[in-house]
Amino acid sequence: MPAKGVLVAVTADVVIAGGGVIGTAIAWRAAAAGLDVVLADPAHGDAASLVAAGMLAPVSEALFGEGALLRVNLLALARFPSFAAELEQVTGHRVGLRREGTLAVAYDAGDYAALTRLTAFRRSAGLEAEELDSRACRKLESFLTPDVHGGVLFPGDWSVDNRRYVAALREAAASAGVRVVRDRVTAVLTAGGADGADGAGGADARVRGVALAEGGEIGSGRVVVAAGSWSGAVRGLPAGLRSAVRPVKGQLLRLRHPDGMPPVLTHTIRATVRGADVYLVPRADGEVIVGATQEERGPDLTVTAGAVHDLLHDAMSVLPVTSELILAETCAGLRPGTPDNGPIVGEAGPGAPGGLLLATGHYRNGILMSAATADASVACLTGRAPAPEWEPFGPGRFLTGEGAR
Amino acid sequence: MPAKGVLVAVTADVVIAGGGVIGTAIAWRAAAAGLDVVLADPAHGDAASLVAAGMLAPVSEALFGEGALLRVNLLALARFPSFAAELEQVTGHRVGLRREGTLAVAYDAGDYAALTRLTAFRRSAGLEAEELDSRACRKLESFLTPDVHGGVLFPGDWSVDNRRYVAALREAAASAGVRVVRDRVTAVLTAGGADGADGAGGADARVRGVALAEGGEIGSGRVVVAAGSWSGAVRGLPAGLRSAVRPVKGQLLRLRHPDGMPPVLTHTIRATVRGADVYLVPRADGEVIVGATQEERGPDLTVTAGAVHDLLHDAMSVLPVTSELILAETCAGLRPGTPDNGPIVGEAGPGAPGGLLLATGHYRNGILMSAATADASVACLTGRAPAPEWEPFGPGRFLTGEGAR
Repeated sequence: MPAKGVLVAVTADVVIAGGGVIGTAIAWRAAAAGLDVVLADPAHGDAASLVAAGMLAPVSEALFGEGALLRVNLLALARFPSFAAELEQVTGHRVGLRREGTLAVAYDAGDYAALTRLTAFRRSAGLEAEELDSRACRKLESFLTPDVHGGVLFPGDWSVDNRRYVAALREAAASAGVRVVRDRVTAVLTAGGADGADGAGGADARVRGVALAEGGEIGSGRVVVAAGSWSGAVRGLPAGLRSAVRPVKGQLLRLRHPDGMPPVLTHTIRATVRGADVYLVPRADGEVIVGATQEERGPDLTVTAGAVHDLLHDAMSVLPVTSELILAETCAGLRPGTPDNGPIVGEAGPGAPGGLLLATGHYRNGILMSAATADASVACLTGRAPAPEWEPFGPGRFLTGEGAR
Repeated sequence: MPAKGVLVAVTADVVIAGGGVIGTAIAWRAAAAGLDVVLADPAHGDAASLVAAGMLAPVSEALFGEGALLRVNLLALARFPSFAAELEQVTGHRVGLRREGTLAVAYDAGDYAALTRLTAFRRSAGLEAEELDSRACRKLESFLTPDVHGGVLFPGDWSVDNRRYVAALREAAASAGVRVVRDRVTAVLTAGGADGADGAGGADARVRGVALAEGGEIGSGRVVVAAGSWSGAVRGLPAGLRSAVRPVKGQLLRLRHPDGMPPVLTHTIRATVRGADVYLVPRADGEVIVGATQEERGPDLTVTAGAVHDLLHDAMSVLPVTSELILAETCAGLRPGTPDNGPIVGEAGPGAPGGLLLATGHYRNGILMSAATADASVACLTGRAPAPEWEPFGPGRFLTGEGAR
């Protein structure tokens, strides 16, 4: 912790710790709502959101038993187009929203049966889906391997060019007056309680700002922790929240069409190859994203030979023409995972310092949830209630028994 | 061609067109021999030699019917250590010479029989080789796949860190007084004959310098064309020489050990996987090079998904632990191939302009042959005869019938 009495050089209505897609979306909307916002991030614009595929896929991501997550994902998807449209209008940049849908394909009768069961569940949740035989799949996507057994088209799954989207968010935030401090928030500072190294203050404590890695402080009565997989490194958060977020490594590939090759893909394709999920996401500018591994390796950002091999192998199994594409980039990012796969959004709540908000743990859905998370966070910051879909995803669920600490 | 009468701003005893490993080695030795040398290259230090694996492998590269090539490769190998030692002494930098040898492995009895026949041929040429069974192979390299059927150790095959080596050559050349012009040689200029766009001058013509892409000229009575796969783009060369060199694309991978992992490899490994040759070359600094494709695609430098997949697949087949290494870099280079796989080194000869030398077409062996090529070129430049091993590799073999043009 910096020594007490350090000069407080900057003050703001709200400090946002973390400048990834979530922090930047909140910063933009909070500033647009009239708040004086400082965003702190040592590498603003160099986060997991740049490694993402940009799938807006509440449907094909929804699994059995994750009904609440599906509902908040659907809220997020419904909000996304108007949010993106305003972003495009404010910045003058296109963010590459595509609405062709996802085609999930199966290689054999067993895979197809599993896909059909999932489809029934999704239909029961009111989601659109269309079963297709092998021929129909290949009519939709002519480069698909002839080995495909059948598939399901989910027209409600969209995608966005995550890099364009994040760049536009940064520009919109700057235009709205958000100030960026290129430093890392090491601790949430509180008043009216203890500021111990791991303390969350007392029940009576309130946020008074944040401490920065380079020794400065930012004074603010509201702090939003949107630090993704690094959220647990912020001291002053209740212990239950610090341990709730873990990094889940994802490696993915960015492929490009060689000059003169027509697009090999229109829809996002998902498949299970040798038990591993693979997806291919086409971009309007000719890129094809292939993802992604899910690895529990802590904060490791290396690109490994085995992962690149497997991604290429699986992509070529689904779409053999992939072998002709240019391997433009290999990259790794850290998704903020949580024990129940759900995000952590809202007031930290009873037992945590007053004025502390969380917006983290978005795991595989940070891009999708960014617009709705910004809405929910700005609602909290301006004294309104977030949409009811967020109720199951408050920080309180990880705070059991900490109220009295 | 630049207009006649353009200002000749630079003059030299020798102009070398091309700053890859060959051009730079010649430049260093020519300057060390007292000549005033200008080296012209728009991207000095960004050539095929940086993409190479740095194998010094005259033995495992030698094929039936290439006896003359084997002899010049052996000359080159014999010369390499003293050349490298002088380079290290002059620059103070290590170039990473390794002398562990190459272990060629076979996966089945058929592969092994082919390897044995090749070994007999190499022994008949006086080369050392040691047959090893599967267990002995794995004793030498403990991470080798248990599927290996047997192998042959070629202790005469060494390797060098090509990037360190080329960087040291550049530094040595600069220290010896070589001047670098960052521009592309578009034409060899002659006097006493026609300077037509495709003309090689008359039989009486002599070199008077070179024309540069940005419009200047360098005046010089000796020109060495060492432009690798781009040699054919230099106007003023006899047509037979211009068409003799073609680019052969090679893609390779640079892998790295993660922190704390002990080296997975000591020897260079070669194998044939699904009919394709793959090699893994360990570096003292923890890098492992995996190569290489051989593609006839013209001057295409893209890295393709299919090639990276195949290289990773083949490397993991030979050495499964490869999957745990970091994929640090994927790259593509253009080898200067010739119709008979041999280099083109020496005076351009009868029918070509006097004073014109070639040192190109080194195909897969540019690093290996660099020292001996520098010796041969400097011999020509100073009026001495190159070693007799070079005799079959003069430019004259591609000039048939052009004498009278």
